[in-house]
Amino acid sequence: MAKQEHIIIIGAGLCGSLLGLRLAQRGYKVDLYESRPDLRTTDISAGRSINLALSDRGIKAMKLVGIENKVEPLCIPMYGRLIHDTEGNTFSSNYSGRDGEYINSISRGGLNGLLLDEAEQHENVTLHFNKKCTGVDIENNTAHFKCYESKEEFSVTGDVVFGTDGAGSSLRKSYYLEKKFLFSYSQNYLTHGYKELEIPADSNGKHLISKDHLHIWPRGQYMLIALPNLDGSFTVTLFLSYDEGEYNFNNLTTIEKVTEFFKTQFPDALELIPDLDKEFFGNPTGALGTVKCSPWQYKGNTLLMGDAAHAIVPFYGQGMNASFEDVVVFDSIMDQHSGDWNATFKAYEKIRKVDTDAIADLAIDNYYEMRDHVANPIFKEKRKLEMDLEKTFPTEYFSKYSMVTFNENINYAKAMKIGRAQDKALLNMIADKEIDTTENLNNILKQVQQHTNEILEEDKVAGLK
Amino acid sequence: MAKQEHIIIIGAGLCGSLLGLRLAQRGYKVDLYESRPDLRTTDISAGRSINLALSDRGIKAMKLVGIENKVEPLCIPMYGRLIHDTEGNTFSSNYSGRDGEYINSISRGGLNGLLLDEAEQHENVTLHFNKKCTGVDIENNTAHFKCYESKEEFSVTGDVVFGTDGAGSSLRKSYYLEKKFLFSYSQNYLTHGYKELEIPADSNGKHLISKDHLHIWPRGQYMLIALPNLDGSFTVTLFLSYDEGEYNFNNLTTIEKVTEFFKTQFPDALELIPDLDKEFFGNPTGALGTVKCSPWQYKGNTLLMGDAAHAIVPFYGQGMNASFEDVVVFDSIMDQHSGDWNATFKAYEKIRKVDTDAIADLAIDNYYEMRDHVANPIFKEKRKLEMDLEKTFPTEYFSKYSMVTFNENINYAKAMKIGRAQDKALLNMIADKEIDTTENLNNILKQVQQHTNEILEEDKVAGLK
Repeated sequence: MAKQEHIIIIGAGLCGSLLGLRLAQRGYKVDLYESRPDLRTTDISAGRSINLALSDRGIKAMKLVGIENKVEPLCIPMYGRLIHDTEGNTFSSNYSGRDGEYINSISRGGLNGLLLDEAEQHENVTLHFNKKCTGVDIENNTAHFKCYESKEEFSVTGDVVFGTDGAGSSLRKSYYLEKKFLFSYSQNYLTHGYKELEIPADSNGKHLISKDHLHIWPRGQYMLIALPNLDGSFTVTLFLSYDEGEYNFNNLTTIEKVTEFFKTQFPDALELIPDLDKEFFGNPTGALGTVKCSPWQYKGNTLLMGDAAHAIVPFYGQGMNASFEDVVVFDSIMDQHSGDWNATFKAYEKIRKVDTDAIADLAIDNYYEMRDHVANPIFKEKRKLEMDLEKTFPTEYFSKYSMVTFNENINYAKAMKIGRAQDKALLNMIADKEIDTTENLNNILKQVQQHTNEILEEDKVAGLK
Repeated sequence: MAKQEHIIIIGAGLCGSLLGLRLAQRGYKVDLYESRPDLRTTDISAGRSINLALSDRGIKAMKLVGIENKVEPLCIPMYGRLIHDTEGNTFSSNYSGRDGEYINSISRGGLNGLLLDEAEQHENVTLHFNKKCTGVDIENNTAHFKCYESKEEFSVTGDVVFGTDGAGSSLRKSYYLEKKFLFSYSQNYLTHGYKELEIPADSNGKHLISKDHLHIWPRGQYMLIALPNLDGSFTVTLFLSYDEGEYNFNNLTTIEKVTEFFKTQFPDALELIPDLDKEFFGNPTGALGTVKCSPWQYKGNTLLMGDAAHAIVPFYGQGMNASFEDVVVFDSIMDQHSGDWNATFKAYEKIRKVDTDAIADLAIDNYYEMRDHVANPIFKEKRKLEMDLEKTFPTEYFSKYSMVTFNENINYAKAMKIGRAQDKALLNMIADKEIDTTENLNNILKQVQQHTNEILEEDKVAGLK
């Protein structure tokens, strides 16, 4: 760099604050603008998901900026799903057959606060809160803001502008509205929304149910999940249709109906949520949407990253991890294009978009899997077999979930392609009783690999590749 | 109907004028508003596709309104593709092995003019040209217009408002911008654009190349097609990348480069297009986009139809047919809900959306097939075998193309599902040399059906349905 280039980042959430920190570490001068108040000093969690799942792709990003040791104390390891039936019985389903593979429940606010601390401590970073981006002049790298405190409007011009301003990105809106290029764009909502509730800690500040699991109450048309928090509580999320089925957000209008719904569907959970009334009617109903778009960049001036480029539904626990991985991938691309932003941005999208599209689709797959299939006998037999295969062949067999979640060196698109074929092979072999579980696992592994390869080959021929 | 209900239709293109005519036939009072001048008295074709393929689904709609005999004289039957290689050699590939199955080249303007004539002659219809819709108040069924002639702005309120205003629909834009509900929306562009050119008639007004075919010059990264017109000319369309590959719209900036491109890639076509210079640089470059959205309706007040609800790329020749079929499906749904617009609109979208999504995806499939595969040996062998199967088993075997194009009683979604499985079965059987073409066709048919069913069954198990 001849001179120190000046970078503007719109949005200091999880992705923006990590990106700002990393670019500062690389020597750039970074100004980070955030529309909300500083979350380290204000409670602004209302309605947003309070905790998230951090896994290997995200941890790799923490290592890139050197803060993995500070992140670890914020983590609660979850080793598998604990599935609750309508009788209150539970059974567990591990995430992996290998030791040391687990996902982590982590507070969004806690992690974002740590990233802001780290960014703020870097001499190259300046943080600006309460500054709402009102639009971006994408020809001139100029972002327009309004200050929520002073009510003043102002503009800032940088060498480049990054939009890490989430699913409702103002930079992306400028791409859409300015019509300077053909902008492929999609926003797709599920028929279901979500509502957050809480299982508080017991009187000793301990967790009332296993904190080593992600809890699921799968009921086909609706689903409840719960992730543990460090303070002994659980954040519970209800996924429910807006207007379909016997129970939905539109017709659950009284506490009597809500209680009846929980009593018949989630009786064990009902006993653990004392403030159901207040929370159900006080907390907002969130929408579940997927956003895809292309191009992410314009003329090497501006670039979308994180949820601004690819918002996904939460069912694979990969939203944050994918956004963090964006920064890792972008960082590696920067090494190859020595300061040429246009070339860097193009190369980044070319390599990255196929993977963010894949995780978006995988997350939709998992929505149906978690809601409808985790309690299905064939699915359960498949999961059990996969655990055995992973345990016995830890370097040879990887389930789709393991590839996506624990193998940061397999990209999402490859994990999706191979994982879907492998799932299809396993489910069909189980359904057709082609797998004899008394047979030695070595033979079963070979059978599964062979059938998976046949499926991949048939797909390839059908695509005439 | 207690009183005669008043219907406002925005857009008097192919879909809007057909819908207006049909609703008038059903007894409604219809006002049709069109932003363009009356195409029957003004030449406004510039830049739009001049001719289109009319096939069985579209013809069914013509029968519904009783004008099939008036449409027939506008049609030029095309019985198959005629593929041109770079040496100027040609080979043909029929659309069907059954007699009497063909698609028709038809002038957009001619057909739209006929539909306007028919609508105008109906006492219940009033046409309004040069009236640009500027937005719709979707709570109050009120459409706002600006008159291009008088420059005046005015509003009209109806019992219901239909948006048949094409891919750039103003009603759809109102849905998107008003944010009154969760609106799933996508616009996706291909990397290629298109440009229209002309092969004029010979000095006797005759066609210079076969008028019984749709001509294709497939070249992988680019493609030329040509459809015949009644006046002896052909409308030629070049599909080319905006900025990728050796030749693209961005780098073809001089007539020398354009001529070199055609000389190496489409030498036989070059000799037939005398005004290449004028047309290539004078005609606009069109974009190729797919639009999907949901919901199409709002509170029984407004409904999107045709391209406004589902714009697709032209590669299956089904855009107009799908829009016409919308009217047929809508008409049949109306019979079931006796005047309850909200119920009608909901039932219509519920049954119809899966099909318009399918034809959008099939059209993208065909983009790759036409560009890359029609000259592929395995593909050619498959097409030949399918023609033999259709000829020998006319009531038992239907190719994907036949199901989509000639079987108006198989909906698009089913045609896609079965057709894709059947294509996969055939291509794999040919690639694996599992088909012995000396064997009797009866056995081959059974093999194909069996493999197709296995594929469908494996997919079903993998989806755990």
